[in-house]
Amino acid sequence: MAVYTDITEVELGTFLRDYDIGELLSYKGIAEGTENSNFILHTGGPGGGGTFILTLYEKRVARADLPFFLGLMEHLARRGVSCPLPVRRSDGEVIGELAGRPAAVITFLEGMWPRRPTPAHCRAVGEALARLHVAGADFPLVRPNALSLPGWRALWDGCRARADEVEAGVGAEVAADFAALEAAWPRALPEGVIHADLFPDNVFFLGERLSGLIDFYFACNDFLAYDVATCLNAWCFERDHAFNLTKGTALLAGYQSVRPLTPAEAGALPLLARGSALRFMLTRLYDWLHGPDGALVRKRDPLEYVRKLRFHRAIASAAEYGLKQP
Amino acid sequence: MAVYTDITEVELGTFLRDYDIGELLSYKGIAEGTENSNFILHTGGPGGGGTFILTLYEKRVARADLPFFLGLMEHLARRGVSCPLPVRRSDGEVIGELAGRPAAVITFLEGMWPRRPTPAHCRAVGEALARLHVAGADFPLVRPNALSLPGWRALWDGCRARADEVEAGVGAEVAADFAALEAAWPRALPEGVIHADLFPDNVFFLGERLSGLIDFYFACNDFLAYDVATCLNAWCFERDHAFNLTKGTALLAGYQSVRPLTPAEAGALPLLARGSALRFMLTRLYDWLHGPDGALVRKRDPLEYVRKLRFHRAIASAAEYGLKQP
Repeated sequence: MAVYTDITEVELGTFLRDYDIGELLSYKGIAEGTENSNFILHTGGPGGGGTFILTLYEKRVARADLPFFLGLMEHLARRGVSCPLPVRRSDGEVIGELAGRPAAVITFLEGMWPRRPTPAHCRAVGEALARLHVAGADFPLVRPNALSLPGWRALWDGCRARADEVEAGVGAEVAADFAALEAAWPRALPEGVIHADLFPDNVFFLGERLSGLIDFYFACNDFLAYDVATCLNAWCFERDHAFNLTKGTALLAGYQSVRPLTPAEAGALPLLARGSALRFMLTRLYDWLHGPDGALVRKRDPLEYVRKLRFHRAIASAAEYGLKQP
Repeated sequence: MAVYTDITEVELGTFLRDYDIGELLSYKGIAEGTENSNFILHTGGPGGGGTFILTLYEKRVARADLPFFLGLMEHLARRGVSCPLPVRRSDGEVIGELAGRPAAVITFLEGMWPRRPTPAHCRAVGEALARLHVAGADFPLVRPNALSLPGWRALWDGCRARADEVEAGVGAEVAADFAALEAAWPRALPEGVIHADLFPDNVFFLGERLSGLIDFYFACNDFLAYDVATCLNAWCFERDHAFNLTKGTALLAGYQSVRPLTPAEAGALPLLARGSALRFMLTRLYDWLHGPDGALVRKRDPLEYVRKLRFHRAIASAAEYGLKQP
């Protein structure tokens, strides 16, 4: 949960005078997102009104990256991907400043993220991910993935000495993962804009119909298939840490119904999934070792991703995730 | 901030089938209230829909008190006091059960609580408090004030040994307050239903127009003038701890424009204000000494109310708060 910055109704009212969204009727801090402060706004008045999300970007999001994130949402929304649309101010900008922080107003998406995803949800998210990749192909801005192999190495340097605090032997295991990944990481797969964090809490549904994707604040340019690998990690494991082949099959079939994976992508999928598991293990480990005790941000267990790493190490081909060659 | 319990979209959808408010479109935990878990709901569909607040009552609210709190909101709303209206289930009840907790759906009130109250806000809150007292006169349920003198004594017994941790000498000061209050506490002032916690974050405004009162979870039966005294403490002191006579005058004039204080109430006001300051000092002190470190609920400084206690000790008559005799 996250509301790091309180704002007064007076400063918010002043801030919103630069937008054509009506009069402010209410705002409430919402307990979602772990990086920024988010508020749900209601507006009304003769020019209409509605529900919006106000985001104050806290220090973990670099101001220089905001044009990429917000521009991407606008680009995708225009191409029919259901995602929040940044609202332009009367001066044409989408980024303002509030309480000393960069701030943006985006449209509100109805829908709920699935606490217990079903195979139907997985299929829908696979389809939506592929549509995002296709729609992002002509997005002109570029943002390298800060959390790719070199970034993982930097995180690891800050954790490795204490990694065995999580479980004895984890340090040696992960060192071996680094050796394997650095030796074999692909160099020439199809690249483009990826979401990079498409976990269930970033995908809204109304029933089993996907109503939208949110939280583009890790989006970047990288291998498209790496995004598929992250979704396998995020959507297709059960609470007991077992991989669910039905969900994997559904997610991959959904993806391929829009954008079939190339043979090279299919071949790389086990390594990409192992790399993606390492990436989430490392950020969790880092927060777990370095985060303040009793912080407002709940710490996620790095062990969950140590288990996923072990799973992917044993995978020989993407067929084991449920991939059917087209 | 407070969201103690997460709920799944499936259990919430099932829960809402007992209400006639349309299909669930979204829900978000909101960072308001310190006692319960609150969610903002959007619903829609052919039968209409709208915005609602879902409250899950956590352990600090006694289930046996819920009919009083929710019944009072319904009673007041029917008499024109703007406050949330509990939504009845199809079986006629207003209390359901969700995630193992009592739960209620109430209507959403637009408006914002004033971070920096003005004299106009104070006048409006005085008027609204008096209207609440008048409208509550025929409410049939009774709930004794658990946080009156005997309750303060119990809190104090759990704190006095460590009170000087707040500031040297506080223990002796407060012991003298208890002696003075127990000797002189009024026995026969007009009684009725009081809000008992009408702080700025429980009063919504659209501009300077009061749009509603919320959070009736401390409401009880007690001296009406005690509620006025609490509002003086809650609304009429500045951040530098100085009493603002303009605000006190406005609040009391607003109250008296609807319900003039009796001479006995006016005479008792300094003692009631001292008692009310003691009450909030004690609950803050208790939480400060006993709350978990780094808890999600922000600890409020008991010293603010030690300073208010010192102020009220020196008040000879309610005229010093700005009371004009009618």
